Order: sequence, then C-alpha cells, then structure tokens
Amino acid sequence: MSDVQPFASRVSVEQVEEGKFLAPKFDENGLLSVVTTDAETGDVLMMGVMNEEALLNTVNTGEAHYWSRSRKCLWHKGATSGLIQKVVEMRIDDDQDAVWLRVAVEGGASCHVGYRSCFYRAVPTKVENGPIELNFTETEKAFDPTEVYGDAPNPTQL
Amino acid sequence: MSDVQPFASRVSVEQVEEGKFLAPKFDENGLLSVVTTDAETGDVLMMGVMNEEALLNTVNTGEAHYWSRSRKCLWHKGATSGLIQKVVEMRIDDDQDAVWLRVAVEGGASCHVGYRSCFYRAVPTKVENGPIELNFTETEKAFDPTEVYGDAPNPTQL
Repeated sequence: MSDVQPFASRVSVEQVEEGKFLAPKFDENGLLSVVTTDAETGDVLMMGVMNEEALLNTVNTGEAHYWSRSRKCLWHKGATSGLIQKVVEMRIDDDQDAVWLRVAVEGGASCHVGYRSCFYRAVPTKVENGPIELNFTETEKAFDPTEVYGDAPNPTQL
Repeated sequence: MSDVQPFASRVSVEQVEEGKFLAPKFDENGLLSVVTTDAETGDVLMMGVMNEEALLNTVNTGEAHYWSRSRKCLWHKGATSGLIQKVVEMRIDDDQDAVWLRVAVEGGASCHVGYRSCFYRAVPTKVENGPIELNFTETEKAFDPTEVYGDAPNPTQL
C-alpha cells in the first residue's frame, strides 16, 4: 500500500452501511470475521479472522490471508499445505465487520483434517433428545493430512 | 430438550474432529460463530453468533436463532421483521466452534439495511492504493427497512 490511508474513517451509520469506501470495524482484539466459500460450488469452506495486515495482504495480493488465533501469527493460507486460496470475489458486510471471500482453491480442499470443507458434518434439526448425532456429508478425504502437514501441531483445541 | 445432556464432552481432538456427536466449543463469551447462506442461491446472507440457548432453539425448532450482541438478548431472526429463516441444513465445523446454516428465508431478505444479503458490496483486490472503493452488488433493496423495523434502534455501531 502507498502512504495514502487505505481505509475511510467511520463517520456515520449511513456512510458505513451505504457508502462506497472500505471502512472496516476491527473488534476489541483487532479482528474481522471471515467466511470463505468455494466460488464454484458455493460451499462454505471455512471461517476465520483477519487483522489489518491480513486484510491488506488479501486486498493487495488476491490470495487469502488470515490471522491464526491458534498460532498467533499472520497466516497465508496454503503456505504450508500448498492449498492457496485465490480470491475470485471479496465482499464486506453492512456494518463492515465481516468479510466474505469467494475463492478458487488449488488442490480443492481447505480443511486441515483433510476434507474439502471444514463443515463436513450435518447437525439434525427438530430433534428433542440428546445426544445430538451428526451425519458426515463428506465420506472421503481430499488429501492425507499427515502427508501434507507432517508433524505440525493440530490447530484444534479442546 | 429432555434431561439427557444434548452435547457430548470434548475428550480428544480425534473425537471432536472425527466423532459423530455434537460437542460444541463456546468461546470465552459463551458464543459460537455462525454463517448463514441462502440454500437456493448459495449466497452468504449474514454472519452472527449463537450462545447455547440459541443453538438448542435452532436445533429444536428448525428456525434460526442467534445471540444479538448489540441488543444482548436471544434473537429469533424474523420475530420483528417476519423474515424467518427456516433451516434446510445445519453443519458444524472440524473443531466444532462454528456453525453453517443453509436457510430458506421467508421474504427473501436477511439484511436490516433492506438488502437480500448483508454482503451487498464487493471489495476490489490487487489494488495498491487507498482509499479502497467498494462496488455495490445489489442495486435495489428487497424491502423498506423503515416500514419493517419502524423506529427500532439500528444495530450498526461505529
């Protein structure tokens, strides 16, 4: 980015909601929410967060960058796995605190467990009794995570 | 829900990621992230959060419930506007801290500004200079928010 301020100031609700300049609202941890969908199928691949640097890197390069909360660092998605996400379209929401990325994924998968999408299990609705049993919507993994990530720590926390 | 515990305990990474029981991880504020898409078009309509009560109400009724961070209350989406979201499919992600709702929306719109989706503006990528100018992807509102919400406070915060 040049030394021109990339973001507009947040002056009024009308300007934020109906204006034509990017004026993002980072939360108390300096983060925006991000949802990433497969531009071809429309499936939600993952949810994540961006700090200011990740947002600017995504805008500048057209490749998805996030803030990794588990590793506490800027995360160029695919730098380890090769599963780079090329941004086909990027959207901002009404109050400008959330981003929607429509991406093309090299390798076709985005989930560290090896599935295409992180959302590979369905939750039944209109059930009254627990425990609530999930249904797998993907039955085969797109890649072998131990081959791709080796012994890198698993980001899932209990 | 009956008095049987609706959720499984989180015992191991493998059980959380590959198991068949719902074992959600609420964050330090007791919330899950939620993304809601139009089941027909695949468009992202909104992002929000659920607390335990909102999650259970959604599972029980098949209608989307959220936690409203601006109003600090359980939020049955559409209770005010009539724009109820019927859950077509509900998914949980790998580490079970995020939900994807595929919904059918009565009235066809989900955004308090009056647009169909909250994500009605595109952010250009591969730009180097600010300010970053947005492109409207919806040009007509699906409803008149002043008619639907009257003088209810606008949830957008500066």
